[in-house]
Amino acid sequence: MSERKISQAVIQRLPRYYRYLGELLESGVERISSNDLSKRMKVTASQIRQDLNNFGGFGQQGYGYNVKSLHGEIGRILGLDVTHNIIIIGAGNLGQALANYTSFEKRGFILKGIFDVNPRLEGVTIRGVKIRMIDELKDFIHNNEVDIAVLTLPKEKVADVTKIVVDNGVKAIWNFAHTDLNLPSDVIVENVHLSESLMRLSYNISQKQHMKEKN
Amino acid sequence: MSERKISQAVIQRLPRYYRYLGELLESGVERISSNDLSKRMKVTASQIRQDLNNFGGFGQQGYGYNVKSLHGEIGRILGLDVTHNIIIIGAGNLGQALANYTSFEKRGFILKGIFDVNPRLEGVTIRGVKIRMIDELKDFIHNNEVDIAVLTLPKEKVADVTKIVVDNGVKAIWNFAHTDLNLPSDVIVENVHLSESLMRLSYNISQKQHMKEKN
Repeated sequence: MSERKISQAVIQRLPRYYRYLGELLESGVERISSNDLSKRMKVTASQIRQDLNNFGGFGQQGYGYNVKSLHGEIGRILGLDVTHNIIIIGAGNLGQALANYTSFEKRGFILKGIFDVNPRLEGVTIRGVKIRMIDELKDFIHNNEVDIAVLTLPKEKVADVTKIVVDNGVKAIWNFAHTDLNLPSDVIVENVHLSESLMRLSYNISQKQHMKEKN
Repeated sequence: MSERKISQAVIQRLPRYYRYLGELLESGVERISSNDLSKRMKVTASQIRQDLNNFGGFGQQGYGYNVKSLHGEIGRILGLDVTHNIIIIGAGNLGQALANYTSFEKRGFILKGIFDVNPRLEGVTIRGVKIRMIDELKDFIHNNEVDIAVLTLPKEKVADVTKIVVDNGVKAIWNFAHTDLNLPSDVIVENVHLSESLMRLSYNISQKQHMKEKN
């Protein structure tokens, strides 16, 4: 990888490139021109060339991109070349949905544990991983290498659980709780605030309505 | 509402303001200074003043923001002052998780129907809404006003279902399938690509690792 600094805007777009290149790989496509990729992704070809130029000589005039190398290189930049052990805390519907996504495993995110407070869930297994009670969380983190804690629990419970997770050395959190976490600066967080996504949709609906009323 | 055009960057931040103001409202806070809001939201006070100035005279020197008016105004801009009827297509774990979020209902998103292809789910009810089979989808959309279709189904099935939804007049889609939709230009879409979010987390973990190795 070149030592050149890649801009945040490009980084934000990388997962989407990775997804498209993965689909091309699966369907046996070996190379693709920026024009063809542009049509599929609905991004201009010049944007694609500019973005992908960050990663060195993968695009060749008259040949296009080598799908496999580019997919591999972007995966490496995204940190998908190493495995990450994950635990899911909160085994409600959302936690169970995430536990069942086999595509995460394919990308190296290995489900090591699932935790809940509901005694009725104790011992239930999801994809071979059994649901444990939250009072086992601390010991579990000590005895296993946990890279990412996924928080799929109600916002009222999230502060206490986050403290256990962070105090015991987990350095990355994927947060689905409807609240922002108070974290030490060396802990990385990625928030998925679903209600905010729904509000953006609703905003766009109302903007369209306003436009119609004006015309 | 002023006719001034609000920038996309501000719009992106509005749902978060709305969430914080809602929490303040719930805990009985009537007014708040930009400094206090700044500490809570971990955004600079000047950013807050700049953002909220878009909505006219809600902030007053020495008084701060009236939480209720500001919450109401931002809600109105986000289109939360009208109700939206939603249907969820795909009653797996994720679809059921969304169907169970009562907080969506509180903001005017009313769950009207849930659809699946799995006959074992037929007639099961979630919060009083029964799961219907997908062959009833077309008639259902004709007989009910459906504002938003939520797609929580495998990417292989999403193209066919999207066609039914769009052909029958639904104008907004909240898409959780791991693929981009091919939509007419008058249909609004908001994508939630969970695997891309996980890749961003993984990217940040690997960047931290690289930084460590350098030092």
